[in-house]
Amino acid sequence: MNFKMITVLEARKLIRENCISSKVEEVKLRDAYGFVLAENVHAKIDTPPFNQSAMDGYAFSYDNWDKKSKLNVVGEIQAGNFSNSKVNLMEAVRIYTGAALPFGTDTVVMQEKVIVTNNLIAISDIYLEKGTNMRFQGSQGKNGEVAMHEGSLLTPSAISFLAGTGIDKVKVYSKPIVSIIVTGKELVQPGSPIANGEIFECNSYGLVAGLNQLNIQPVSVEVVDDVEKEIIQAISNQLRSDILILTGGISVGEFDFVSSALDKCGVRKIFHKVKQKPGKPFYFGKFNQTLIFGLPGNPAAVMTCFYEYIVPAISSFNKRSYFKNLQLPLTIDYKKKAGLTFFLKGKIKDNEVMLLNNQESYLMDSFAIADCIIELDEDIECLKQGELVNISMII
Amino acid sequence: MNFKMITVLEARKLIRENCISSKVEEVKLRDAYGFVLAENVHAKIDTPPFNQSAMDGYAFSYDNWDKKSKLNVVGEIQAGNFSNSKVNLMEAVRIYTGAALPFGTDTVVMQEKVIVTNNLIAISDIYLEKGTNMRFQGSQGKNGEVAMHEGSLLTPSAISFLAGTGIDKVKVYSKPIVSIIVTGKELVQPGSPIANGEIFECNSYGLVAGLNQLNIQPVSVEVVDDVEKEIIQAISNQLRSDILILTGGISVGEFDFVSSALDKCGVRKIFHKVKQKPGKPFYFGKFNQTLIFGLPGNPAAVMTCFYEYIVPAISSFNKRSYFKNLQLPLTIDYKKKAGLTFFLKGKIKDNEVMLLNNQESYLMDSFAIADCIIELDEDIECLKQGELVNISMII
Repeated sequence: MNFKMITVLEARKLIRENCISSKVEEVKLRDAYGFVLAENVHAKIDTPPFNQSAMDGYAFSYDNWDKKSKLNVVGEIQAGNFSNSKVNLMEAVRIYTGAALPFGTDTVVMQEKVIVTNNLIAISDIYLEKGTNMRFQGSQGKNGEVAMHEGSLLTPSAISFLAGTGIDKVKVYSKPIVSIIVTGKELVQPGSPIANGEIFECNSYGLVAGLNQLNIQPVSVEVVDDVEKEIIQAISNQLRSDILILTGGISVGEFDFVSSALDKCGVRKIFHKVKQKPGKPFYFGKFNQTLIFGLPGNPAAVMTCFYEYIVPAISSFNKRSYFKNLQLPLTIDYKKKAGLTFFLKGKIKDNEVMLLNNQESYLMDSFAIADCIIELDEDIECLKQGELVNISMII
Repeated sequence: MNFKMITVLEARKLIRENCISSKVEEVKLRDAYGFVLAENVHAKIDTPPFNQSAMDGYAFSYDNWDKKSKLNVVGEIQAGNFSNSKVNLMEAVRIYTGAALPFGTDTVVMQEKVIVTNNLIAISDIYLEKGTNMRFQGSQGKNGEVAMHEGSLLTPSAISFLAGTGIDKVKVYSKPIVSIIVTGKELVQPGSPIANGEIFECNSYGLVAGLNQLNIQPVSVEVVDDVEKEIIQAISNQLRSDILILTGGISVGEFDFVSSALDKCGVRKIFHKVKQKPGKPFYFGKFNQTLIFGLPGNPAAVMTCFYEYIVPAISSFNKRSYFKNLQLPLTIDYKKKAGLTFFLKGKIKDNEVMLLNNQESYLMDSFAIADCIIELDEDIECLKQGELVNISMII
C-alpha cells in the first residue's frame, strides 16, 4: 500500500478543500432552530404593522390638544381590534397595550396619568410629548426590507423575530446525511453477554451521541465483522450519504480490510495516516461528493478525529460553527516527543486548563469527563506550567 | 389585586426555592446524550476485559526468553478470537491489535521489530520490556467499580466510555414536561393573512425553539384569545405539566386575564411583578408541583424571562447547566435610571461585549443577533467604557 503520512495542518486543508458547496432546503420556521439562513429573508410586513400603543391608556392627537382641557372618551380599542372612525379634536379613545392607534391620534397617555370623570379624562403627565407611549409603524423594520441576512444562525430569538415579521418558512443550509459503519470481529453490543477475547462496542455510541450533540441523526448505523466482503457491502450501501464514517480496520494489519474495501468500492483515497496521536491511521477519501472518514478503532482516537475533523466537515455543509477555540495556560509542565501533534483530553478550571490522566487512545475515562481537547503541535517538545496552549471546546 | 414588586435576586431565590426535587428515569444509553446521571454507574467488566495486545505483532513470555534466541510461532490470534492453549518456553503467537494475549504470554513485540524466517521470529527491539505493547486487564477500571458518578453530564465521550464498560441503560434526571400557552386576541400565525390591528404570533416560536435549544420538546403549545374562560380552560388542561409557560395578558389591564385565570384555577401566586426591564409584569406561581411562569406578551420580555428564569428552573429538574456566565468589559459608556435591573441584548467581540441597538421590549431585531444578555443591577446608574459587566451566554 502506498501512502504518505501528512501533518494535521495538511489533513485539515485537504478536508476543507474537498468539502463540497452546501445543499439548501426550505424548512418550516418552527423547525428551524440551529440552522443557518441560506438566503436574505425579507420582512412580509412593517413591524409593528401599524402605530401601536405601548401602554394601557388613552390615545389622542397631541398637536390638537391645548395641553389643559379634558378630552372626551369616544371609544375603546383592545389589542387585535381596529377602528375606522377618526378621532376628532378634543377627543380620546380608551386603548390597550398592543392595539392600533386610530386615525387622528398620535400619542398615548398612561391610564395611571389621567383622572377620569364620567366620560372625560384630565391628563396630568408633565413628560408627555407627541408620540409618547406609541410604537411607530415600521419602526423595527419595513415590509420588504432584509430582516435577516444569509449566514445568520437561527437562534430562538432570531426565530421569534422572523415569526413576528410574518415569515413561516426559511431556506437554510442542509445538514449533511451521515452514515456510520463500525468494524470489528471482537465487538459485542453493550447489554449482551461477552465472551473471552471480546469487547463491548462503544464507537457507534460515541459517534451517534456526537452527532446528536450537533443536532444530527445519522441515517444508518451498522456494525460489521472484519470480513472484506461484508465491509464492501456495507460501504456500497452508504455511498450516497454526504458523510460516511468508518471505525476500525484502517491500520495495515492482515485483518485491516477497510482501506482495501474502500479501494474496491472506487473511493478515491486523499490521505491515509496523519502525524498525530491518537488517531495516526486516520484515512480520508471521497466517492463522487461523499466524504469518507476512516477512523482507527480505539475509542479515544474515534472521538478525537470526530471533534477535530468530522465536526469541521459537518460545519462546511450546514455553515454552523459548533465549538469555540481558546488559548489558556496549562496547569503543569508537560513533555512530549517532537514529530506528532498530540490531542490531549483537558478540563478547564479557573481560566486554566488541566491535562487529565489516562491519555492513551484505548482509555476513555479521561475523555468522559473532559470539556476540551488540547492541541500540541508536532514541533513542541516541552511546555512549562502557565504556557498558553490551543484548546477546542467539546461541550 | 395585591402584589409587591420584588427584585431580580428575590425572584431568582423564590423560583429556586420552589423547584421540586427531580424525577429520575431509566433511558437507553444510546439515547442518553445531554442527560445527567442520577446514579453512580458501576462497570460491568474489567476494562480492558483481558490482557490485550496494543499492536499487530507477536506475543510471548518476556521472563522465559533468553533475550537472543529465535521464538517458534505456534499460532495466530485475531481480535475477537480467544485461545485456550498455553504458549510455552521459546514460543510466540502471531497476535493482532485488540486481541487477547494467550496464557503464558505477557509482552508483545511489534511486527516491524522482528525478522521472520519460516516459522521463527528473531526479535530486534532494544526498548522491549516486560508488558510492552500490552494493555493490562482492568487497567482502565475494574468490574464493579464506579465508572462514572451521579451528577456527571453524559457527553458523547462519556457515553462511549460507559458503552465500553458494558452499560446499556442509565438512570438520569428527567427533563421537565413543559407546556406553552400564548394569549392574545391580536395574534395571527405567521404565513396567514393579517388584518388591521393584528400582529404575527411569535412567542410560541421563540419559546419552542428555546426549548429545542435545551433539547426539550414541549408537550403542548396553544394559542388562546384574551377571554378568561378560554384561558382558564387552557390552563386547566396543562396543570399536570412540570412547567407551564404563559405569555401575554399578565399586566393589570382590563383585558389581562391570565392572573385572574390562574387564581381561579387554584394556582398559588408566589410573586407578580419584578423590578426589571424588560419583563416587569413577570408572574410566578405554583399548583401542586407544577411551576407556572406568566410572561408579558412582548417578545423580548418573553425571551429574556425564558433565559433568565425558565432555563434555571429547567436546570433544577434535569441538573444540567446550559449557559455560561462571564464578566466582560463594555465597549461603550452607558446610563440608566436606578430602580430596575436591566437585561440588555449583547454581542461578544474580541473579549469585550457590545450593547446592541434597539433594546425596547417589543423589538426583536437586536435579540435575533445577540449571543448574550448583559445584566445591569438595579442600583447601577452609569457605566464607563471598559467596566466589567455580568453576562449570560444564550448561544
